[in-house]
Amino acid sequence: MPGEAGSIDFPRSFGYLFILRFSLIPREGRARAGVLETDRGEIKTPVFMPVGTQGAVKAVEPRELEEIGAQIILGNTYHLYLRPGTEIAEKAGGLHSFIGWDRPILTDSGGFQVFSLSSLRGISEEGVEFRSHLDGSLHLFTPEKVIDFQRSLGSDIMMVLDECTPFPCDERYALESHLLTLRWAERGRNQKEKTRPLYGRSQLLFGIVQGSTYGQIREQSAQALVGLDFDGYAIGGLSVGEPVDVMYSITELCTDILPSDKLRYLMGVGTPENILESIERGVDMFDCVLPTRNGRNATLFTRNGKLNMRNASHADDFSPVDSECECYTCRNFTRSYLRHLFRAGEIMALQLASLHNLSFYVWLTREARDAILDDSFAMWKKEQLSRLSTEITEPI
Amino acid sequence: MPGEAGSIDFPRSFGYLFILRFSLIPREGRARAGVLETDRGEIKTPVFMPVGTQGAVKAVEPRELEEIGAQIILGNTYHLYLRPGTEIAEKAGGLHSFIGWDRPILTDSGGFQVFSLSSLRGISEEGVEFRSHLDGSLHLFTPEKVIDFQRSLGSDIMMVLDECTPFPCDERYALESHLLTLRWAERGRNQKEKTRPLYGRSQLLFGIVQGSTYGQIREQSAQALVGLDFDGYAIGGLSVGEPVDVMYSITELCTDILPSDKLRYLMGVGTPENILESIERGVDMFDCVLPTRNGRNATLFTRNGKLNMRNASHADDFSPVDSECECYTCRNFTRSYLRHLFRAGEIMALQLASLHNLSFYVWLTREARDAILDDSFAMWKKEQLSRLSTEITEPI
Repeated sequence: MPGEAGSIDFPRSFGYLFILRFSLIPREGRARAGVLETDRGEIKTPVFMPVGTQGAVKAVEPRELEEIGAQIILGNTYHLYLRPGTEIAEKAGGLHSFIGWDRPILTDSGGFQVFSLSSLRGISEEGVEFRSHLDGSLHLFTPEKVIDFQRSLGSDIMMVLDECTPFPCDERYALESHLLTLRWAERGRNQKEKTRPLYGRSQLLFGIVQGSTYGQIREQSAQALVGLDFDGYAIGGLSVGEPVDVMYSITELCTDILPSDKLRYLMGVGTPENILESIERGVDMFDCVLPTRNGRNATLFTRNGKLNMRNASHADDFSPVDSECECYTCRNFTRSYLRHLFRAGEIMALQLASLHNLSFYVWLTREARDAILDDSFAMWKKEQLSRLSTEITEPI
Repeated sequence: MPGEAGSIDFPRSFGYLFILRFSLIPREGRARAGVLETDRGEIKTPVFMPVGTQGAVKAVEPRELEEIGAQIILGNTYHLYLRPGTEIAEKAGGLHSFIGWDRPILTDSGGFQVFSLSSLRGISEEGVEFRSHLDGSLHLFTPEKVIDFQRSLGSDIMMVLDECTPFPCDERYALESHLLTLRWAERGRNQKEKTRPLYGRSQLLFGIVQGSTYGQIREQSAQALVGLDFDGYAIGGLSVGEPVDVMYSITELCTDILPSDKLRYLMGVGTPENILESIERGVDMFDCVLPTRNGRNATLFTRNGKLNMRNASHADDFSPVDSECECYTCRNFTRSYLRHLFRAGEIMALQLASLHNLSFYVWLTREARDAILDDSFAMWKKEQLSRLSTEITEPI
């Protein structure tokens, strides 16, 4: 029932405004700065979403995420469906209320996790059957069900169920998989139109472009999804092992097709370099576990590259992790202290490192936005890439 | 050189003011409310010190400690001497600067840890030789050295080296041990008088009463230490397995002897009940790992007793951990969410639980103080003890 959404009398309008301001100088290329209006406030793009898989960004409090300027976080339908379960989320009044986060949340559909984490039982036209990685229990995810689950969670941006192909993936499989994902996307969109939000706030739905590394399939996927008129479009199935130049060229191919007035989200990407290259290719939205996972492993991002905080060279280095960073960690603690915390196995090491790394990622996308609005993105990006390769401390 | 400290021209006066206001109503007994002035601000007693053994209170940021009203934290000379080492602490400008905490710090001498954690090689008149629990390296702690180490750390309150006897302990050993601890105490005090603070702020030194569960030895120990005129007095060697009524009677025996114008610190104690009973017996200062350790094990303290946050009864309980608590955890999150975080193995569980438990302990001692000043301690304490036994959720 495409096109009928507007005729349903929802508590609040489903409408949203995605204002895009393109750079005025032609050499700036595809990089975009936009604003997405949601019922929980606006999201200025490009934006990085901290990952809160199980309803918590690992080791970083919600108030700290606000402090560093995180505008939206990501939750995962697969994990939250299994634990605490959608019933608890509903009783809590939705995910925002449950986890104490008032700003927007995007929920992944769970497709990726079904294929990567669970014990897969079978994939069919109907959906995907799997055993929980927690207790082995049997579950079926269908395109309709994952919309219902995300209704229960009340996320501001929902994702359709998709099949995320591995790398490498033969072309025949990639084609069949894309076609299935496309049929699922339509069913998801229809389910969204048949149902309504549970908590009085509108929810957007994004389609997901698949097609592995095959340009023609990606084109078909993107074009067909655009025909289904989603609220935004994700590029999935990248950053799964393919060469980085392939990732960039597929990304560019997709953004060339996707409508300029809709948000583009590159799923699961990536390093600071990946993010800058993808912004240049017209991507607006990112999520990645790198800042938090690397933080917990003592790898800290700085404007001048990565540091291994366990390195002996930091033992008596009383400078901050990144002297230009304004996060709590960098304003109050030294490399020497962080090294001590990691060596001593203190939880505080994970907290301070994760907070800093997320702060760095949020800063990076915010600065990219400023540069785009300032018509200086290309120059700024070149300078950042140069700096990012400066300081690489090898592990001891 | 007792009595000569005042003749040395230190950067700032070594003097301090310990204002005690006793309850005016005789039935209030020994409970005291005081103010200890230090070069890093005043400490209002009774006071609970969060434990930051290795230079970090586990899972709770310094700014959060300030937020909940922690006035002073504890660090451990044994741990900090081994890692990061006193050289790093000195290069950092002292422990406060190293760990980003501006309020007072008390450092334990390391005596307790040498006996409990390390591989003890031998105890002699000179001091105690041990192997590090980290790398097996050989070290000697003498009464003089532990003062020097605490000079390097720059703690506001230093502790003398003592031998903490185990429970049970035969009387002969307890007597000999107390006499050795006493000789060490005098050597520590002399070392303090011969040296000076490294960072321009005065440091207090506390003696430690030992003597196991033997009243006569405890009396001797307390009286002899008073003769050495310390800045304050700790009661050590309790809460090591003896019956709780023995702990209380030994505590009372000690506070009866210790001078009323000096601070009394009951080391390593204890449960909320222990703390209330000890305040009633004239103790001013406490430290204990219970709030943080229990927090990490999903046991949360409330005004109505302890909760096991893993219990299934919390699954759909959307009330705060403690509805009367004003900490970040209780203002923003539910029992249901905390249970989810613990089950999901999220670091956030440790953070929110530790923050709440410390907040509860700080609240408890602050309220005790208010009740003392209000001449209502006995009644208040009775009410608290009654409430503390209300809500005990059994593990599932």
